[in-house]
Amino acid sequence: MAEGHRVVVVGAGFGGLQCARELRDEPVQVTLVDRHNYHLFTPLLYQVASCLLNPSEVAAPLRKVFRSARNVRIRVGEVQSIDLAERRVHLADGTHLEYDDVVIAAGSTANYFGNDDLARDVLGLKDLGQAIELRNHVLACLESAALSEDDEDRRCHLTFCIVGGGPTGVEYAGALAELVRLVLPDEYPEIDPAAVRIVVLEGADRVLPAFPPGLSNYGQRELERRGVEVHTNQLVAKASKTHVETRAGMHIDTRTIVWTAGVRPTDLVATVAPQVAENRFDVDDHLRVNGAAHAYAIGDAAAGRDHHGKVLPMLSPPAMQEGRFVARHILASRRGRDTRAFRYHDKGTLATIGRTAAVGVVGPLQFTGFLGWLVWLAVHLYYLIGFENRVRVLMRWAWYYVRYDRPVRALIDARSPQP
Amino acid sequence: MAEGHRVVVVGAGFGGLQCARELRDEPVQVTLVDRHNYHLFTPLLYQVASCLLNPSEVAAPLRKVFRSARNVRIRVGEVQSIDLAERRVHLADGTHLEYDDVVIAAGSTANYFGNDDLARDVLGLKDLGQAIELRNHVLACLESAALSEDDEDRRCHLTFCIVGGGPTGVEYAGALAELVRLVLPDEYPEIDPAAVRIVVLEGADRVLPAFPPGLSNYGQRELERRGVEVHTNQLVAKASKTHVETRAGMHIDTRTIVWTAGVRPTDLVATVAPQVAENRFDVDDHLRVNGAAHAYAIGDAAAGRDHHGKVLPMLSPPAMQEGRFVARHILASRRGRDTRAFRYHDKGTLATIGRTAAVGVVGPLQFTGFLGWLVWLAVHLYYLIGFENRVRVLMRWAWYYVRYDRPVRALIDARSPQP
Repeated sequence: MAEGHRVVVVGAGFGGLQCARELRDEPVQVTLVDRHNYHLFTPLLYQVASCLLNPSEVAAPLRKVFRSARNVRIRVGEVQSIDLAERRVHLADGTHLEYDDVVIAAGSTANYFGNDDLARDVLGLKDLGQAIELRNHVLACLESAALSEDDEDRRCHLTFCIVGGGPTGVEYAGALAELVRLVLPDEYPEIDPAAVRIVVLEGADRVLPAFPPGLSNYGQRELERRGVEVHTNQLVAKASKTHVETRAGMHIDTRTIVWTAGVRPTDLVATVAPQVAENRFDVDDHLRVNGAAHAYAIGDAAAGRDHHGKVLPMLSPPAMQEGRFVARHILASRRGRDTRAFRYHDKGTLATIGRTAAVGVVGPLQFTGFLGWLVWLAVHLYYLIGFENRVRVLMRWAWYYVRYDRPVRALIDARSPQP
Repeated sequence: MAEGHRVVVVGAGFGGLQCARELRDEPVQVTLVDRHNYHLFTPLLYQVASCLLNPSEVAAPLRKVFRSARNVRIRVGEVQSIDLAERRVHLADGTHLEYDDVVIAAGSTANYFGNDDLARDVLGLKDLGQAIELRNHVLACLESAALSEDDEDRRCHLTFCIVGGGPTGVEYAGALAELVRLVLPDEYPEIDPAAVRIVVLEGADRVLPAFPPGLSNYGQRELERRGVEVHTNQLVAKASKTHVETRAGMHIDTRTIVWTAGVRPTDLVATVAPQVAENRFDVDDHLRVNGAAHAYAIGDAAAGRDHHGKVLPMLSPPAMQEGRFVARHILASRRGRDTRAFRYHDKGTLATIGRTAAVGVVGPLQFTGFLGWLVWLAVHLYYLIGFENRVRVLMRWAWYYVRYDRPVRALIDARSPQP
């Protein structure tokens, strides 16, 4: 067991996990803190919500990931605050962890753009609990619609409104359309498939606004081909359990509002440091938190920049590269060596609209259609943590894609654990 | 769509499901009512609780099971009462179903033997929600123990007490012992594996009391070989969130009391008929509820008898045979034909203690060890509903048994659905 230099990594998302992996078997003592006992592969979360994957297929238990690493301790707990002067990470259970270096990789949470009342009435798609809740909710809506004697009420239960046309919104809308198309005709004879409405509301003038316009057009066309209504330039003004209204005057009766309109860093950032830009830690070119010693910030929690000085997007590739960089920088510093400044390598962005249709940008290349989907599949399988997960998820996809089935449809109400 | 004769099947457990399957594509209109949208393969529930299987691998969506059956409607809902005079099944949502024949297959619930306060403080292993709750609870106890600075407290978190030494208790105890043995040494360096106690408390003088004494001895030996403490002649007197006491004076500090001590028919039975034996419907030799016309009762809810007049045990094989019998009897009656009385064919009983160890009785034959385990595996795979489940579960077992792993270990707190 390596004693001595204590590194606390706050958060086991893409950034924190990569950082801790890079530090394994090195002469430092790592404590990886997360509120969950697993690393979540968020890019496939929408597949849990749309009945294709089991929760365990996108959640890698942290103790398993680090099972052979003797210098990495897993600490399940909620971080409440970080005292940069005293070098302590305070947890919600009243205990604290002392550190020599801290890596803040606390991630992000749903952004309601100031309208936090919305949180009560919408469904999220940001963590595993929410994905299961959304899956259960959609299945319960189909059951209610199958029973309903009232046309109005049935329509309301069969209208699914997705707020946000970024990758998460587009991917979930596409997957939901496929679920409905595969499952309804054979299994819900009570429901007319034509009565189902899946609506995407995007605030910008096109879906997938982070992609080139050509790919946005392709994405919208593919969604529409699957029966999804896409409305751009629609910002949500009001929402309740039974309807949503946009500023431009659209009014939709629906029992299901899925909020994928954006993310913001967790509130932890604000409690730690006043000197932040848009709630992200202001960091130098070595990802050190400005104004604090021995503190690094990475991923969605930090405003890391590329070599043009542009703040990096809140996505997994920057977080992973930053995590590895910080780990190497900590190790080099311990050895008294210098490291060059962090430099982000943009490997591209991908989003899938559904079975055999995806969009991708890799450097000067743009992919669409089946080719894009193959690239998307390969990249996601490669980055899935844990070898058996990769093999199993691939087998599962192959099987259910061939059979046009969605297996994970039990509506399970599990009570919360009380240890 | 076959109109006309309306058959309502209450409950989609083993009995109800077999009954509805036997009626598919026959000239009757079937409504299968269950509070869940899935059929639960309860014999493998302990594997969900012990992190080996995913919930969806033991839960077959009912609409999928009946996807091609045009005369079977699925109705998700809670049955509140059955009016045998008016021939109506009343649901908790205020609606009702009218029937020409009703098949009551409402199953059973945990039996606290009059001490219903226990329900608050113990964990169950009777439905899918409970199995997930138990899995989460055990994982949370391991995390708490890993953190605890207090010996007493750590021991309490590492003591797992299983009340009941029937098949469910024995199977769960064996699976938990394997989970602990596989996972603790590599993944919880903070915990001394020797500090873990798994205790089975059985009220009778031997575990697996429904099996021949030789098999009980084998079962106890195999459990003990896996580090499980077995205490017989121990009836629980008191239990709380932190300890359990037996009438014979044992006192165990534990955070985990798993109640598998027995089942009793659901309260629905008592609300329907006063003329019941031990809360099970009194039925004639054609499984018709005595004193009521057009009402059948099967499975745990009914006191069906074998040809010696002995009441059948509350297990799946009688329920399945009764379900098929009633379906055929209803169809024959519609055609004006007679049916011979119900006759139970005892095909044997099986229980597994863990990897490669099981006990079984089939007629005059008794199995133990690896052979018993192979028989157990074959029978359970055969009866798993849905072909892809069978293949997938088999692949999964093969994979994880070879790798000595338990994959489903994410501690997930999903909120309940509110459609």
